Amino acid sequence: MQHTITFTHEDKQSTAIVPTGAMLSDAAHLAGLDIGQPCGGQGRCGRCAVQVTDGNVRRRSTLRLSPDDIEQGYALACQTVVEGDVAIHVPPQEKIERRLTTDRVVAEVTVPADYEYLQDQTVRRVHLRLSPPTMEDQTDDWSRLQTGLRLQANVNKVNVSLALLQTIGDVLRAGEWDVTAVLEYPLEHLEQPLRLVSLQPHHVDEYSPLWGCAIDIGTTTVSVWLVDLVSGGVRAQVAEYNGQIARGEDVISRIMYASKKGGGQELRQRVLDTINELLETACKRVKAKPEDVVKATIAGNSTMIHLLLGIPASNIRLSPFITAVNHPPLMTAREVGINAHPEASVDCLPGVASYVGADITAGVLSSGLDTAENVTLFLDVGTNGETVLGNRDWLVTCACSAGPAFEGAGVVNGMRATTGAIEEVWINSETFEPTYRVIGAGKPKGICGSGLISLLSEAFITGIIDKAGNVNLMASSSRVREGAHGGEYVVAWGEESESGADIVLSRVDVDNLLRAKAAIYAGFTVLADTVGVPLETMDKVLIGGSFGKYINIEKAVQIGLLPDMDWSRFEFLGNTAVKGAYYALLDWKKRERITEIAKRMTYIELSADNSFYEAFTSALFLPHTDMSKFPSVAVALSSKVKGRRSNVGMTE
Amino acid sequence: MQHTITFTHEDKQSTAIVPTGAMLSDAAHLAGLDIGQPCGGQGRCGRCAVQVTDGNVRRRSTLRLSPDDIEQGYALACQTVVEGDVAIHVPPQEKIERRLTTDRVVAEVTVPADYEYLQDQTVRRVHLRLSPPTMEDQTDDWSRLQTGLRLQANVNKVNVSLALLQTIGDVLRAGEWDVTAVLEYPLEHLEQPLRLVSLQPHHVDEYSPLWGCAIDIGTTTVSVWLVDLVSGGVRAQVAEYNGQIARGEDVISRIMYASKKGGGQELRQRVLDTINELLETACKRVKAKPEDVVKATIAGNSTMIHLLLGIPASNIRLSPFITAVNHPPLMTAREVGINAHPEASVDCLPGVASYVGADITAGVLSSGLDTAENVTLFLDVGTNGETVLGNRDWLVTCACSAGPAFEGAGVVNGMRATTGAIEEVWINSETFEPTYRVIGAGKPKGICGSGLISLLSEAFITGIIDKAGNVNLMASSSRVREGAHGGEYVVAWGEESESGADIVLSRVDVDNLLRAKAAIYAGFTVLADTVGVPLETMDKVLIGGSFGKYINIEKAVQIGLLPDMDWSRFEFLGNTAVKGAYYALLDWKKRERITEIAKRMTYIELSADNSFYEAFTSALFLPHTDMSKFPSVAVALSSKVKGRRSNVGMTE
Repeated sequence: MQHTITFTHEDKQSTAIVPTGAMLSDAAHLAGLDIGQPCGGQGRCGRCAVQVTDGNVRRRSTLRLSPDDIEQGYALACQTVVEGDVAIHVPPQEKIERRLTTDRVVAEVTVPADYEYLQDQTVRRVHLRLSPPTMEDQTDDWSRLQTGLRLQANVNKVNVSLALLQTIGDVLRAGEWDVTAVLEYPLEHLEQPLRLVSLQPHHVDEYSPLWGCAIDIGTTTVSVWLVDLVSGGVRAQVAEYNGQIARGEDVISRIMYASKKGGGQELRQRVLDTINELLETACKRVKAKPEDVVKATIAGNSTMIHLLLGIPASNIRLSPFITAVNHPPLMTAREVGINAHPEASVDCLPGVASYVGADITAGVLSSGLDTAENVTLFLDVGTNGETVLGNRDWLVTCACSAGPAFEGAGVVNGMRATTGAIEEVWINSETFEPTYRVIGAGKPKGICGSGLISLLSEAFITGIIDKAGNVNLMASSSRVREGAHGGEYVVAWGEESESGADIVLSRVDVDNLLRAKAAIYAGFTVLADTVGVPLETMDKVLIGGSFGKYINIEKAVQIGLLPDMDWSRFEFLGNTAVKGAYYALLDWKKRERITEIAKRMTYIELSADNSFYEAFTSALFLPHTDMSKFPSVAVALSSKVKGRRSNVGMTE
Repeated sequence: MQHTITFTHEDKQSTAIVPTGAMLSDAAHLAGLDIGQPCGGQGRCGRCAVQVTDGNVRRRSTLRLSPDDIEQGYALACQTVVEGDVAIHVPPQEKIERRLTTDRVVAEVTVPADYEYLQDQTVRRVHLRLSPPTMEDQTDDWSRLQTGLRLQANVNKVNVSLALLQTIGDVLRAGEWDVTAVLEYPLEHLEQPLRLVSLQPHHVDEYSPLWGCAIDIGTTTVSVWLVDLVSGGVRAQVAEYNGQIARGEDVISRIMYASKKGGGQELRQRVLDTINELLETACKRVKAKPEDVVKATIAGNSTMIHLLLGIPASNIRLSPFITAVNHPPLMTAREVGINAHPEASVDCLPGVASYVGADITAGVLSSGLDTAENVTLFLDVGTNGETVLGNRDWLVTCACSAGPAFEGAGVVNGMRATTGAIEEVWINSETFEPTYRVIGAGKPKGICGSGLISLLSEAFITGIIDKAGNVNLMASSSRVREGAHGGEYVVAWGEESESGADIVLSRVDVDNLLRAKAAIYAGFTVLADTVGVPLETMDKVLIGGSFGKYINIEKAVQIGLLPDMDWSRFEFLGNTAVKGAYYALLDWKKRERITEIAKRMTYIELSADNSFYEAFTSALFLPHTDMSKFPSVAVALSSKVKGRRSNVGMTE
């Protein structure tokens, strides 16, 4: 039986006709409405709540709805079944700000000192001058081109796709037998046969750019660097939210969504759209066309790579956590769906395991961990917390699900590190009044990852929240109050903020942040214990992840995210994954090194490890249950407390 | 400006809205009418004539229309431009009989005596029993499969497409880690890496069939043999008209049509439809599915291969007659568009030149010419007449356009060698009354190639037509008469025929047949002259082409198609092209031999050769201007004439 579902959203009406049993979310999709599903449609996040104003529905789950919500007709679109004609009011949706987060993505990159295009590149451009066919020389076009390559470019064997073969006759004649070919060596570099990537009907200056791109697909953010393969220089850097976010904020939600009918295809298309938009933007900046891009290297966690390639990812989520492929074969842009030159090679870098992907192997390369003399810790702080410990002789790794809190997601007033984000907070220990810095210096819109760490640390040190994360409602400040989700602290009043609403840190946010930092901390402590290397003996702590570059070490130590050690031993490296992809794009020997890294890394499965759970629960406090691990924090706390007491004494 | 074109055809009306300047043929296409264009839309054949019953049109060419035709409103759909609203009557179209011409395609094939599946095949099936993943062994699926192949099948390196990679996780689990893989070796056979063609979730019995197919794409007919690669046996043979015929009967017309907008794509789809229908029919016979076919080899002339692959063929037609590719790379069924297993390899066999294609190299292989001790002549009698002369030491080749007359096309009552075709004719030299044999023994529908040769020869020997092909209207028989196209001879009266209309041999038909046989005869004589080997010294004359098998040598010599030599030296081999493709499918060493043959053959370009034109014009007579080349025909003629004279004497 068919039913009419009428949606009202921002004064507009739209309808869909669906059969009994259809999901409201599917009906909305049919009606052209895009209702975000941050948890991937599992009914866990409650963000897809809509209001049923007429007609009856069946709620499969009301986990995220209060009795009051249900009374008012609220229902989760992803969990509600249509049983008749219904009218639905769709409240204003939490908008994911779809703008390029370029404010902070520009990493300083210098071309490796020893880069030599003709030696290091797998892609090569050659100019050929062929003799035209005559009645005396009726050689076919493809053989003529091959002979030219053999005699003029020393290429003995070359492969070609049918699609390219369909065009060569016209190109050769359009160029009057004076053409430029782009060839790709296989990864083993000097081994034949090569592959013809493109043929252009004219002579291209040998120093003019030959475009490639390095891509990092983060669960939250996708970064693209456009690179001139001849000079090695990065010519444009762009980044954007991963378009999949609307269908799940973490990898598990994405995998769940992908296993629904059509879900995998939708997620694949969403990330391709993001990549293709970024590529277009980057190319525009240098007045190139996406079709000019002849090579791409891609880093990303294993789930992101599976979803990009349309490979089922469900076994990544289920014990024993198996990927379909860790070392994807070399593909073409046509196969993958990237709008570069259709014959451009797409090299998805190798990963290690379900939760230690190519973003980490690329990060290990670009951080130099695999060649370090002394034992070094590498942390990638993103939606997933991956840790690698080792040196040039050995590498061990583990992963834990940190959640997207440090990326500003899953937090009431969280946002990406873009214009309007509060990126640092100081709280007066007497008045509890905050001072904050906003990216772009305008009115605040929310709080980004570094701001959250800063805020959590300040709130803890000043006693606004306690060791366990409880908000101290007894504090004598109007900024501390009971909110919708328990105790909360107001960072910015409505009159100061962009939206006019208060910007707060709630109890729920604190819990999310605690879980995130505890997961990361537990990860590297268990790893260090496993190999018997005490944390304090580590030479360096290298921190990757785009947000890492901007966090305040002191604050990160104070909340117990980073170990308490001399600050000079920390190094913040920014997006190590895209940088590793860039190195792999430029230099086949570095690309081979990533394969070596992937082979060398020993993966420790934490879910099979009881000690992880113990370490995690011990770390769910500020900074930790065991204060002896955080001596500098103990000092800071006691001096603040002393200071406050003496102040108190003075005012009394 | 838009105009409404109304078509009436077989009491049905359909309309199309087209702009000023549109072609009537395009308008008909839009209206869903399929008007045949045997000359490829060049206005040469006159078969697409339609009647304009209302409104005005502009005729670009009226070459094939009489003033009377134009008076009655006739216009060629392919040459007529729309200038306003028009009403069109589409007369009954000459139907190409779309039925499987299986009556005669079954060639006797025996598996080569030395065929050994495991040694000769490039395709191999292996059964793998893998250990399932555990928390202790989290190897990714693709690596697990590769390890299985290495340890259980001795395969060190294997490539996989993205499309197949997307499925392996599910297949491995569906098969509970007990799977069957089909692999393909590269042509160099023992060289790594192999390619994964398919993965099946169960154990397949090693003697059960593994399907491959050999395909010959003729200009007129497409043949498909379905082969069990394990036993080597041919399990089904099917053939069908090439669906491109409706858009041109010879390769030149096809190339012309292909160079129109969308024409190449249409021709490509038409031949793919033919191949896919044939594959489906063949598979049904053996209760297999087209997706079970894991390998295909394809023979065909260069134009057919270009059109199949969507490669522009226009330079084949224009001096200096250049193909885009003679040795196409190995492709997959997915790329080519054949509905076999999408990963099945499609091997388009190598050709030599624009007019000596893979049908000839495959034919040389299957005829054994390339290993012959003595000088041998190989003729492929089809729409094109290709000739190869040589032995195991040398091979020379040339081509001439014979036209489709011997395939029953371009002849008023011509038809394919299928049920209802008159395949042999005898004419009483006194009464001029014919006796004929019909395939299937029913009522005659038309005359096939062997019937035409037989008829032409009998008509010549009995004096119904003279040396130059003129019909002797003075002959005392009602069967000899003035027809629409000049003098004609009635082979079957309307009351005997299937359609009720007379079946005739017209003056136009005779001319077409004369040109066809003259082209072929001139081809091999020029070739023999070029290398200085007199025709009479040839050890054997091998005749390929599906029609060749059924022609009567005596008759073929009498019309001057074949040289006048001892009949024992002729061998009719049937479709040597599909047989060569079959050998190449079965045995990689034979496949390599075809590459060698293509390399060894020296191509003689006849269009650059004045002696060809001379030889051609000399051969435009029955049997030839130089009767000394046909001593046996001279004897036959004189005995017939004597016989008739003595008869005449007796009745006088």
